[in-house]
Amino acid sequence: MTNPAVPAVRPDGRAPDELRPVRITRGWLDAAEGSVLVEFGATRVLCAASFTEGVPRWKKGSGEGWVTAEYAMLPRATSTRSDRESVKGRVGGRTHEISRLVGRSLRAVVDVAALGENTIVLDCDVLQADGGTRTAAITGAYVALADAVAWGVRHGHVKGGRTVLTDSVSAVSVGIVDGVPMLDLPYVEDVRADTDMNVVVTGSGTFVEVQGTAEHAPFDRAELDTLLDLAVAGNARLAELQRAALAQEPAR
Amino acid sequence: MTNPAVPAVRPDGRAPDELRPVRITRGWLDAAEGSVLVEFGATRVLCAASFTEGVPRWKKGSGEGWVTAEYAMLPRATSTRSDRESVKGRVGGRTHEISRLVGRSLRAVVDVAALGENTIVLDCDVLQADGGTRTAAITGAYVALADAVAWGVRHGHVKGGRTVLTDSVSAVSVGIVDGVPMLDLPYVEDVRADTDMNVVVTGSGTFVEVQGTAEHAPFDRAELDTLLDLAVAGNARLAELQRAALAQEPAR
Amino acid sequence: MTNPAVPAVRPDGRAPDELRPVRITRGWLDAAEGSVLVEFGATRVLCAASFTEGVPRWKKGSGEGWVTAEYAMLPRATSTRSDRESVKGRVGGRTHEISRLVGRSLRAVVDVAALGENTIVLDCDVLQADGGTRTAAITGAYVALADAVAWGVRHGHVKGGRTVLTDSVSAVSVGIVDGVPMLDLPYVEDVRADTDMNVVVTGSGTFVEVQGTAEHAPFDRAELDTLLDLAVAGNARLAELQRAALAQEPAR
Amino acid sequence: MTNPAVPAVRPDGRAPDELRPVRITRGWLDAAEGSVLVEFGATRVLCAASFTEGVPRWKKGSGEGWVTAEYAMLPRATSTRSDRESVKGRVGGRTHEISRLVGRSLRAVVDVAALGENTIVLDCDVLQADGGTRTAAITGAYVALADAVAWGVRHGHVKGGRTVLTDSVSAVSVGIVDGVPMLDLPYVEDVRADTDMNVVVTGSGTFVEVQGTAEHAPFDRAELDTLLDLAVAGNARLAELQRAALAQEPAR
Amino acid sequence: MTNPAVPAVRPDGRAPDELRPVRITRGWLDAAEGSVLVEFGATRVLCAASFTEGVPRWKKGSGEGWVTAEYAMLPRATSTRSDRESVKGRVGGRTHEISRLVGRSLRAVVDVAALGENTIVLDCDVLQADGGTRTAAITGAYVALADAVAWGVRHGHVKGGRTVLTDSVSAVSVGIVDGVPMLDLPYVEDVRADTDMNVVVTGSGTFVEVQGTAEHAPFDRAELDTLLDLAVAGNARLAELQRAALAQEPAR
Amino acid sequence: MTNPAVPAVRPDGRAPDELRPVRITRGWLDAAEGSVLVEFGATRVLCAASFTEGVPRWKKGSGEGWVTAEYAMLPRATSTRSDRESVKGRVGGRTHEISRLVGRSLRAVVDVAALGENTIVLDCDVLQADGGTRTAAITGAYVALADAVAWGVRHGHVKGGRTVLTDSVSAVSVGIVDGVPMLDLPYVEDVRADTDMNVVVTGSGTFVEVQGTAEHAPFDRAELDTLLDLAVAGNARLAELQRAALAQEPAR
Repeated sequence: MTNPAVPAVRPDGRAPDELRPVRITRGWLDAAEGSVLVEFGATRVLCAASFTEGVPRWKKGSGEGWVTAEYAMLPRATSTRSDRESVKGRVGGRTHEISRLVGRSLRAVVDVAALGENTIVLDCDVLQADGGTRTAAITGAYVALADAVAWGVRHGHVKGGRTVLTDSVSAVSVGIVDGVPMLDLPYVEDVRADTDMNVVVTGSGTFVEVQGTAEHAPFDRAELDTLLDLAVAGNARLAELQRAALAQEPAR
Repeated sequence: MTNPAVPAVRPDGRAPDELRPVRITRGWLDAAEGSVLVEFGATRVLCAASFTEGVPRWKKGSGEGWVTAEYAMLPRATSTRSDRESVKGRVGGRTHEISRLVGRSLRAVVDVAALGENTIVLDCDVLQADGGTRTAAITGAYVALADAVAWGVRHGHVKGGRTVLTDSVSAVSVGIVDGVPMLDLPYVEDVRADTDMNVVVTGSGTFVEVQGTAEHAPFDRAELDTLLDLAVAGNARLAELQRAALAQEPAR
Repeated sequence: MTNPAVPAVRPDGRAPDELRPVRITRGWLDAAEGSVLVEFGATRVLCAASFTEGVPRWKKGSGEGWVTAEYAMLPRATSTRSDRESVKGRVGGRTHEISRLVGRSLRAVVDVAALGENTIVLDCDVLQADGGTRTAAITGAYVALADAVAWGVRHGHVKGGRTVLTDSVSAVSVGIVDGVPMLDLPYVEDVRADTDMNVVVTGSGTFVEVQGTAEHAPFDRAELDTLLDLAVAGNARLAELQRAALAQEPAR
Repeated sequence: MTNPAVPAVRPDGRAPDELRPVRITRGWLDAAEGSVLVEFGATRVLCAASFTEGVPRWKKGSGEGWVTAEYAMLPRATSTRSDRESVKGRVGGRTHEISRLVGRSLRAVVDVAALGENTIVLDCDVLQADGGTRTAAITGAYVALADAVAWGVRHGHVKGGRTVLTDSVSAVSVGIVDGVPMLDLPYVEDVRADTDMNVVVTGSGTFVEVQGTAEHAPFDRAELDTLLDLAVAGNARLAELQRAALAQEPAR
Repeated sequence: MTNPAVPAVRPDGRAPDELRPVRITRGWLDAAEGSVLVEFGATRVLCAASFTEGVPRWKKGSGEGWVTAEYAMLPRATSTRSDRESVKGRVGGRTHEISRLVGRSLRAVVDVAALGENTIVLDCDVLQADGGTRTAAITGAYVALADAVAWGVRHGHVKGGRTVLTDSVSAVSVGIVDGVPMLDLPYVEDVRADTDMNVVVTGSGTFVEVQGTAEHAPFDRAELDTLLDLAVAGNARLAELQRAALAQEPAR
Repeated sequence: MTNPAVPAVRPDGRAPDELRPVRITRGWLDAAEGSVLVEFGATRVLCAASFTEGVPRWKKGSGEGWVTAEYAMLPRATSTRSDRESVKGRVGGRTHEISRLVGRSLRAVVDVAALGENTIVLDCDVLQADGGTRTAAITGAYVALADAVAWGVRHGHVKGGRTVLTDSVSAVSVGIVDGVPMLDLPYVEDVRADTDMNVVVTGSGTFVEVQGTAEHAPFDRAELDTLLDLAVAGNARLAELQRAALAQEPAR
């Protein structure tokens, strides 16, 4: 799937429009209703889905369920150690922001009425970080969510026979590095990118979230369009990998 | 500047591509090196720029300055009262996220080497909230920042005669409400929008930040393109208003 | 009302027993049940009264209402920037102390049985500080409270036709600066005062709170008496200004 | 010292202008540079003075010392148990307010230049509370402070031979209970008082702090004057007891 | 009870197997249902037992009671002042660990079914620390607990006539100092010990908790056995002292 | 190594004195100076050792290094989800206690003078919990520590050629379940145990830490002796497994 017009300049030998090797391991935990160890190259995120009956107070009696997410990093997921947020006594801005993004992305494909008054919490813990941790988290969390929904159906907590998940959802990063638009940036490229964008897309190819940031140099409309094209193609490939992972035996 | 192809359906009588009345009042505070009360309709944000010599420890000796921002809401800025974050003892995820967005947006037009080892903190406090508080904050904060930079130059803290601000920057929200793409959403439209996007653009029309979110229904590429067009046009109008405000006498 | 025996030595040309220009602007916020922007010279405090049905748990079933207050300062209200209490993760001692003072002062003129099981929270946020922020807060908060009570009566939440507010209440600072007792100190006088006293008085002239402090030099009974005289006269003038403000059309 | 014009109506048989039995035990701790167990009736406060060389960063190089105080209550000092502030993770408003009052009161009699760049921290921990804990804390802390200053002189940390303590300081509560002004209220009277005042007075009879509060009914000038008279007389008696305690052998 | 085979080398003249002077003063507080000031030499801990009807939510309906403990130190209990945990905003690891140890030790001798749905909280506040604060706390807290249980029985809150306390419990430290196993270490010995062990034993001589730690040099089985022998003998003596204290008149 | 005198009664078919299958995987993380995924049956702990030059302020200039540890659990490590400590804003007592235990245990085999002024932090994060998480953490952390020390030697940060690790260290749990002393309890046995003991032992068989707790029934000296025997034998087997793991190629 490489694009011959763009030279292969990447440190790991990938073409600019090529994903890193992606692995989705279901059932990594014994107890969680859904769990996935997802790997985008060296980035490794453990996604655990916890299904509980009932909803938070502000949803009670609504007939609707709730899906939320929490993202965090182990202190030595990165090349130098970071202090624990539990020890610092507060969750940092970046952690908050990504947790909210993961939750919103998943809710975009959940029919909360079909879920009924049940709650699914997705814990996405980064065991090793090499760029793209939030996009790996979303991609893996969707699979864990699908397993948890299936668990809820099998155990009779989700009733009515309606489909809870209206689509799949995945995410990938894109960016412009040394003037070249590239897909799925590892850390070494991420720090050099002028523009960095995370794009969350459904299995049917519509956008759930587009977050593009230019800390170094603003970008123009043509660059934005190229990045969106790359991201849509990358997410189509991730959706296939999610389908393939879920086509295997139920994890639990 | 209304677009005749789109019917004027908005509660406040505006055309879909029309901004709310925008007011930029410089010098609202006596002591701050830059200060602006910015109003987008009923949304009212006080932006204060504090200029101090020196930089945080991790920038010392770099020869570069630092620009950062903090966003917050007064408890009764909204239609019902919210608890204070100081009383809760922690800053919420939304506050963190917007503070970071405002800071990044401003840094995109700052030449930190030209600023020298000085720090400018932008405090954006929402006195009244009616949608678009983060976009008003960015738009007003740029003007306060420009006044603080001018103050630093006048008082000899910024040396070397290079231009600190490489461009202006503003922001506006766009969204799809009942199928119609619209510019600058007040609260009543914001809650009904399927897609909500905040777009930060420089005075020369390039993108600094694109944040589009679909909590209700994913959006397709055509919708995304229309929203970006609306946002670029709205920001061009905001850049004019910023220029006009700064063309008046120095505030301090 | 100047006292010819005391020379006019003040930086702003006032006589020692003269208030700064006081402005009380009702209805500054669209949504709050009562709101006032109060100005004592350059000191500017936004007082918002939030009326809600019901009372805290420990008052339930008592038939009585509850009135409380929270005071805070914006980070750049002062001549140099202060860190946000939300970011520090805790409310400081001074903030706590003033919040409690404002609440007690207002409760002194509220008949909680006549209010019924309703709660009114007064948020007093200092937008610009030039001395006397707590006394301005009390003086403005009383007017916002009166509007919120009237709102509760008009909307049928306060029943029984009894008068909720048994009196008005205002506050002013007094102090001894260079041996001269003075009324309503701005920051520049406040820091030089040997004795600093805040006196809260009802519209009928009785005391609600007397807080006199000598950080530099203890004061004697004669000085205390003079300060109390000044404060009683100043509060009488503030009570007139409150009455005049409330005599206008209802704010909402 | 009873006043025949006021009937003895108090639960413990005291005359209205009579103090509770006061005990000041010096040297209650082995390690502290000054320490006092002070008792006002059943109220029991342990005051520890910690003398350290050096001052906080903001006083460095000033040539002046620093005196500060922290007040707290053990969880079962009161008739029912209170949660610990350490467990709640924040210091409450009342604790903050009293800590600040104790610190200010002591600083009023300290010549910080004579103290030199040394710090004395007064920890006032209420072991048993029966009203008047803040006034007992101030009264006891002064004696602990005097011992710590003497320790600093004896050990050569306070140089120059100037007197550090310019006067003594003590405090007592007064209040109007059932219309009768009374001195030194225990808890059972305190809760019934219409007006409650804490008055801090130097050994030479001048005022350091006057804090009068009317939560139930405002008070008039005549009542205020009577309360001040009672407090001045009570503090004169406390100053005698402090002198007597300090006249004994040095504690350490 | 000294052992002639071990030379008396201790700074306070004690034999290696001798306790410091132990004092148990019941009824030190007026309001607490049980209270003890316990002294192991210069170590002084105030233990207050608070009896309340009802149990935490997770025990409701179980028919069983709950006993828990909180341990803390006053800031100047030690030779230099420590910061307050309330001011730091968090309880330290050591405090948590000892609180949990005290609670577990007491629960080992409580028949929670016989206690019925009542809660007893033991607050152990160290007023002066000279080593062995946790063992003094357990030893004193048992006596305060016994008084609180008796209070509950006398006031009819503990019903059914069954014995709530199945045994007594006490604790003592042992350690190896300069190669010599020793009982009940004061601070000066504690800091020099290679091995430090706290042993909690019932009145009938069985173990509740054995916590041995070698920060400097690991210890062998023979040393462990000797330390356990010393601790068992020391606890037998403490159990006698507890019995003697409780044999006196009820404290309240 | 099973003992024929004790019947094999355990749910997983093990003999009472048999360890669960233990796996030690070195080099699980790319960046950490030492890292181990350790498994005791279904218990899975990721141990990361971070080597940094320099020591905390209180060790500066001592010539000695510092080794410390932090233990934590992922929210879904357990059968039901726990709230994150970072979100709660405080580290719980159990977490604190285990972190301190792991740190002390490792320091017992470190010659801090030979380490020089370097710091090694061990992060032990429980990915899946099935009993014995603290003992697995100590056992795995030792191996990660050994790799980090070797890294420090290879990179020239540890100088002088002296041996930093004076011995190996491991830990195992033992307990009495239904009257039978057992080694290495999984969760299902742990909750039923009358006595629960964690024993930390060096490779040469001496004790570093003995923590025995009887929440249900006190234990006697004979039981204690049997448990210590089991633990010593189990730790001997763990020391062999550590040696075997470290005998392979250096991980990094």
